[in-house]
Amino acid sequence: MGVHPTVEDVAVAAGVSRQTVSNVLNSPAVVRPETRERVEAAIAELGYRPHASARRLRTQKSSMIGIRLDPGTVDGISGSILDRFLHALTEQADAMHLRVLLFTAADPEDEIRQFQRLSEGADVDAFVLTSTFHGDPRTEWLIEHGQSFVTFGRPWGIDDMADPKHLWVDVDGRHGLREATTHLLATGARRIGFLGWPAGSGTGDDRRRGWLETMRDGSGLSDATLETLDVSAEDGVNSGADALRRLEAAAGTIDAVVCASDSLALGALMATGGRIPVIGYDNTPVAASIGFSSVEQPLDEVATGVLELLTGAHGGRMNPGAAITDPRHRLVAPRLVVRDGPPVIAAGH
Amino acid sequence: MGVHPTVEDVAVAAGVSRQTVSNVLNSPAVVRPETRERVEAAIAELGYRPHASARRLRTQKSSMIGIRLDPGTVDGISGSILDRFLHALTEQADAMHLRVLLFTAADPEDEIRQFQRLSEGADVDAFVLTSTFHGDPRTEWLIEHGQSFVTFGRPWGIDDMADPKHLWVDVDGRHGLREATTHLLATGARRIGFLGWPAGSGTGDDRRRGWLETMRDGSGLSDATLETLDVSAEDGVNSGADALRRLEAAAGTIDAVVCASDSLALGALMATGGRIPVIGYDNTPVAASIGFSSVEQPLDEVATGVLELLTGAHGGRMNPGAAITDPRHRLVAPRLVVRDGPPVIAAGH
Repeated sequence: MGVHPTVEDVAVAAGVSRQTVSNVLNSPAVVRPETRERVEAAIAELGYRPHASARRLRTQKSSMIGIRLDPGTVDGISGSILDRFLHALTEQADAMHLRVLLFTAADPEDEIRQFQRLSEGADVDAFVLTSTFHGDPRTEWLIEHGQSFVTFGRPWGIDDMADPKHLWVDVDGRHGLREATTHLLATGARRIGFLGWPAGSGTGDDRRRGWLETMRDGSGLSDATLETLDVSAEDGVNSGADALRRLEAAAGTIDAVVCASDSLALGALMATGGRIPVIGYDNTPVAASIGFSSVEQPLDEVATGVLELLTGAHGGRMNPGAAITDPRHRLVAPRLVVRDGPPVIAAGH
Repeated sequence: MGVHPTVEDVAVAAGVSRQTVSNVLNSPAVVRPETRERVEAAIAELGYRPHASARRLRTQKSSMIGIRLDPGTVDGISGSILDRFLHALTEQADAMHLRVLLFTAADPEDEIRQFQRLSEGADVDAFVLTSTFHGDPRTEWLIEHGQSFVTFGRPWGIDDMADPKHLWVDVDGRHGLREATTHLLATGARRIGFLGWPAGSGTGDDRRRGWLETMRDGSGLSDATLETLDVSAEDGVNSGADALRRLEAAAGTIDAVVCASDSLALGALMATGGRIPVIGYDNTPVAASIGFSSVEQPLDEVATGVLELLTGAHGGRMNPGAAITDPRHRLVAPRLVVRDGPPVIAAGH
């Protein structure tokens, strides 16, 4: 046996065929548990690193990461968040001599067809997915076909969250709303409203929870009052302005507002003419330009986490021989960017 | 000679070495004009297509287009224009089975190092450049090294505009500002101000020219009056609000404003509280969300033009055998997107 153990070596050590070793690596579900354990033990003992060595032998080229450009123009203002993630990912991948290949897809099924095309052509070694949702068929396909991938966004299904085959990085939106609400409470505000999306979206419910928990702990308001301070709206600027008016109609005077997005925040800000503090989410260029506070997703950290999970010794699927106890996901904390509020609106009055 | 003529065939026909043929294709400047003409005649006569055939023989893989992700966060709101161009380009490249590879670069010199690295490694077959400027060293390097490229953005030097080696696609900003100003004149506005960037930027001066020409033709105002209606400001929302106040101080009552960007327009809109029509440029998600009119760059058309110039029979550098009389650049017309104006600001009063 040479310095770099081969599939053959693993097959011999485990007393199985090469195909079985390949199945354990790529489609473990089709292998009987006893056999799988035997092969995994042989992999660990020999220190076999299938993907990396195979790729290095096959080609001198850099590894390629495939990522779909998100069509996301639904939320026009916050939509840029995925473009900003792409910037961070490309910058860090460049520094690691990995390449980023872009593709587009009309829907999840189309994206799966692209996965197939790009992995069959050996154009792409691993995929990065964004905009995950509950029951996402894309991750299911990738796991079934033994493709390396990491998602920006958690699975959003309670059962899937700890799936060792699904590596993910996400931002702790609940923590972000806690920070924003705590900041407002510290400035003396008590009647702090929340403008969020209709219940049912994983991300939106998570952010709402952060506001609600903090208000229960720190505002001294009753649950009944908190209910009047909680308003749902579809994302958008005009929708945010409308929601702010509904909030004032339902709750009377309010001291401040935290929002699930910068679009809602901009609407609230315009409807109030800047009378009360408004905090948005995503720290978009719009928040920076106009000058209102917003919760920032640390996209550099997300990109770092994604690349570490993809390539690292610590559980990346590109390196399935690594110990299974390594962390398989990252939840990174966003930070509140505090700004004075927009002088321009006030001046317009 | 086979069906597909080779470099050898061209060399024999022109009575030169293979290296000379290669020089004519890749570094024409180093070849004497008489020799160059002889080789070009042989290429045309034989119908030799160097890049396409060589690449097809070399590899079964798809052609790869390299593009730098613009760091552009200078203009936060309009910065997304290049991300939107990237979306359009990737979508159309996908449909043509071309692949898009992303990279980042800190500055033009760094971008040139990336060109070198990516072309030497044969990772990339052609480059698409954005954010061109006067005296751009990047295009000079690519021409010298015989690399295929097309720029989104004209050279901005009078001498370079017709350079047959520099293929480019750009948007006719002057035309866009003419459309916007004409629209306002048709609604009865006469004292139409212009908020633009300080003189000296190719793009900014071009947009200013569109406003000025239209006002001279259609407003009936004197040149002295037009001068008071022309205000410069660095790009930005607060800067736009400030410029609007300076405009009103200098020119008195104004009927409407056209702006070189949506950032300036948003500032003007906030400073006036929506009293008068404001038209922006770039039709960003912010303009759409808030609901003000803006000039839209037809990025789909730009992407189509870029890909046609890169790959087409009509003068693309990927196909240098094509007749030299074919169009080497495209100037596409933007369109004005008319909206009613933002109800939210008015409601906030």
